[in-house]
Amino acid sequence: MKNETTIPEELKKRVLEKIRPDASERTRLLAVQVELAEKVNRAAETLGIKAVFAKMVGSAARGTWLSGTHDIDIFISFPEETSRADLEKKGMAVAREVAKTASRIEDRHAEHPYLNIIYKGFDIDLVPCFRVASTSSLKSAVDRTPFHNEFVKKRIKGLEAEVLLLKQFMRGSGVYGSELKTRGFSGYLTELLVINYGSFENTLKAAASWSPGEFIDLEAHASLSHPDPLVMVDPTDPKRNVAAALSLDKFCLFMASCRAFLKDPTFEAFFPVPVKPLTEAEISEKIKARQSAQLALSFKTPDVVEDVLFPQLYKSEQAAVTLLEEYEFSHLKSGVWAGKTKTIILLELISNKLPKVKKHIGPPVWLSSNAEKFRAKYEKKEDVFSFYIEKGRYVAEIKRKYPEAATLLKAKFPDCPLGKHIGKSVRQGFEVLENEELLRLEDPGFRIFLKKWL
Amino acid sequence: MKNETTIPEELKKRVLEKIRPDASERTRLLAVQVELAEKVNRAAETLGIKAVFAKMVGSAARGTWLSGTHDIDIFISFPEETSRADLEKKGMAVAREVAKTASRIEDRHAEHPYLNIIYKGFDIDLVPCFRVASTSSLKSAVDRTPFHNEFVKKRIKGLEAEVLLLKQFMRGSGVYGSELKTRGFSGYLTELLVINYGSFENTLKAAASWSPGEFIDLEAHASLSHPDPLVMVDPTDPKRNVAAALSLDKFCLFMASCRAFLKDPTFEAFFPVPVKPLTEAEISEKIKARQSAQLALSFKTPDVVEDVLFPQLYKSEQAAVTLLEEYEFSHLKSGVWAGKTKTIILLELISNKLPKVKKHIGPPVWLSSNAEKFRAKYEKKEDVFSFYIEKGRYVAEIKRKYPEAATLLKAKFPDCPLGKHIGKSVRQGFEVLENEELLRLEDPGFRIFLKKWL
Repeated sequence: MKNETTIPEELKKRVLEKIRPDASERTRLLAVQVELAEKVNRAAETLGIKAVFAKMVGSAARGTWLSGTHDIDIFISFPEETSRADLEKKGMAVAREVAKTASRIEDRHAEHPYLNIIYKGFDIDLVPCFRVASTSSLKSAVDRTPFHNEFVKKRIKGLEAEVLLLKQFMRGSGVYGSELKTRGFSGYLTELLVINYGSFENTLKAAASWSPGEFIDLEAHASLSHPDPLVMVDPTDPKRNVAAALSLDKFCLFMASCRAFLKDPTFEAFFPVPVKPLTEAEISEKIKARQSAQLALSFKTPDVVEDVLFPQLYKSEQAAVTLLEEYEFSHLKSGVWAGKTKTIILLELISNKLPKVKKHIGPPVWLSSNAEKFRAKYEKKEDVFSFYIEKGRYVAEIKRKYPEAATLLKAKFPDCPLGKHIGKSVRQGFEVLENEELLRLEDPGFRIFLKKWL
Repeated sequence: MKNETTIPEELKKRVLEKIRPDASERTRLLAVQVELAEKVNRAAETLGIKAVFAKMVGSAARGTWLSGTHDIDIFISFPEETSRADLEKKGMAVAREVAKTASRIEDRHAEHPYLNIIYKGFDIDLVPCFRVASTSSLKSAVDRTPFHNEFVKKRIKGLEAEVLLLKQFMRGSGVYGSELKTRGFSGYLTELLVINYGSFENTLKAAASWSPGEFIDLEAHASLSHPDPLVMVDPTDPKRNVAAALSLDKFCLFMASCRAFLKDPTFEAFFPVPVKPLTEAEISEKIKARQSAQLALSFKTPDVVEDVLFPQLYKSEQAAVTLLEEYEFSHLKSGVWAGKTKTIILLELISNKLPKVKKHIGPPVWLSSNAEKFRAKYEKKEDVFSFYIEKGRYVAEIKRKYPEAATLLKAKFPDCPLGKHIGKSVRQGFEVLENEELLRLEDPGFRIFLKKWL
């Protein structure tokens, strides 16, 4: 797809005015960073932990943060030879010492425990890590981050605004963020795209004609192949794909957004008009217009972070679909939504009812032993509607056990593979809502979700 | 499947008493045959047609006819060098001369025209044929029959009763007859099975463990392979499969019947209790119990013989199923029934309604030219419910054109490939009946058909 449009400078300027931190924001952020780094170094000293000091990483450290994003990552760097147990114990001790003056403290857990604090209005992660010599001797996934930081800092000079535009454009398109909920583009991936293509505009023009398997290797050092839609070989680690978390649909959505924007570059592409929740009347009317069957599985949102919740939620969604298909209910689509209190798996079916009669197809007649067992079981059975041969196989028209989808879900969903936390929540209690009963789900967030759905 | 039961002699005797023609029936049949043969020879003489004479073929000629079956085939045999036009003209002239004293005369047509008459209570086909030297020089399909007759007559002596038992058993099982309606076993095939296996009982024991591709070649001279479930190489023609007309389901039904009978040999297997038509109350109750959707396409039975009607009817049945599946209606089963005045294609669906919304799946997003054409067409279209990306493809949720199966059939069935005569009949007018409306079809034959269906 050739597209020679140039994105108006005026538009970029207008967007940058909103997203580029001004001098005072930069100064404040840098001051807090320096302050925290000093706190880390002092805490290590106080606790008598040697050769441990702060490393600043993340967009805040390389000048590519979006204004208003008050996220700071401070890594607490331990010598490579430290044991895992020591890293966790001593690292958290340092973090807790630093956190003493924070306004909120929260223990979090990725591969290792870390601390999330609110300090002077900033959202700060204090993350213990190993100071390894190269990415070939990583001891933990987070040890990679300082290398990313080094690589980007060396190459990004002068391109910061391009990165900001791309990040904001991805936000507007709904593809920004590599968390397991979004499965979109990470900040680091965005920076590497700009480094590779040279500008925001060039990235969009290239992406408009990507296809799955798109391959970028800045250092020409790839040592593994990857089955992902986009492969951005990590310049600091030849085995790793930076875009591994990107889903096919987010990859495609970004391509589609690039094409639409290049055809018609608007401010709203960066800052879309917020979607309003559907009203009750609208929900009701749309459900009636579709004449399909809406089914919502609703249960208490488990008290875990989204990166733990969403993989389980996608797994549970798939389990519900598999269960329905196994019992011959055809689905149009499925989706998930998680609010503070309730989590919903939403399913749209061709129909929530099936006939009482079910065609039960038996073995081929010529596999005589199995075939005659099947016949003995079904031919004269009282509640068998009829018994015949079709395409060489015995067929028994039997009574369907679950002619209603809601009854099936109520009976069988708790036994599906749902993941640990969702499984527990569902077994503690869940509801199945049909069609108009969806009106009982009053969370505005869910009604925004319904806007796209119905 | 091993089964060492022996069929009780007493049972076979009891059946044979009902089906073996007694002395007086044999005498009458032979007398009529001789009489007709003489009439043919005399007619040829009268009309001055030379070297033409009668040949007696069929079960009546070889002592394997079932009592009460008053069918006689008389072939009017012309020299090989006769032209097709002459055969038809002169053959029919002879037949008409013979038919002068018949109580009913009907012109019929297979590959060539022939005459069907009722004479002294017998149903007689007068069939002109070529007298060829061997089956390698056949000029018409019927020319093969005299060869079959010769082969069987030579080998069947002493096995006639076994053939009668097998024929009657096949009748009882619903697999006897190779017409295009039944697609079962022909009389000739039955005779060859008995010749091959040596007896009625041995045939049943062998058939109980047949499997598709079963191959019998009495003369060990097969020169072609056949994709049919049963291959009985014609002993008079190495290229031909005598069982070519046998469908997979009738092949399997016969196997299943053999197994059931060997396990429990009953008189009723030969003479099943006639099925009574369902009453209105029963039809109504069964339709309600199934909770599926019954749809009947009803039209005037075309005035053609069954061998012409049924291939068209099966084709039309398939066309209706294909049409419904194309528009996303799932069917449980389909069937056909033809009475004197009405012909019915019966369809059982999961549901006769579908949602208004239809998922229309577009091209993969990376095929940019097609994908963007699809998007331009659907994304902003007024009656599109929603537009999104799924599994890398654009999806538009559009309005379904035919959410009701009956409406679809009314609109599109006449344009389906239905065959000449059914196409004409349907285009002259047809009805689509749903569920309880089936009660309007009052023919007892149809209600017997419903007995197995519902």
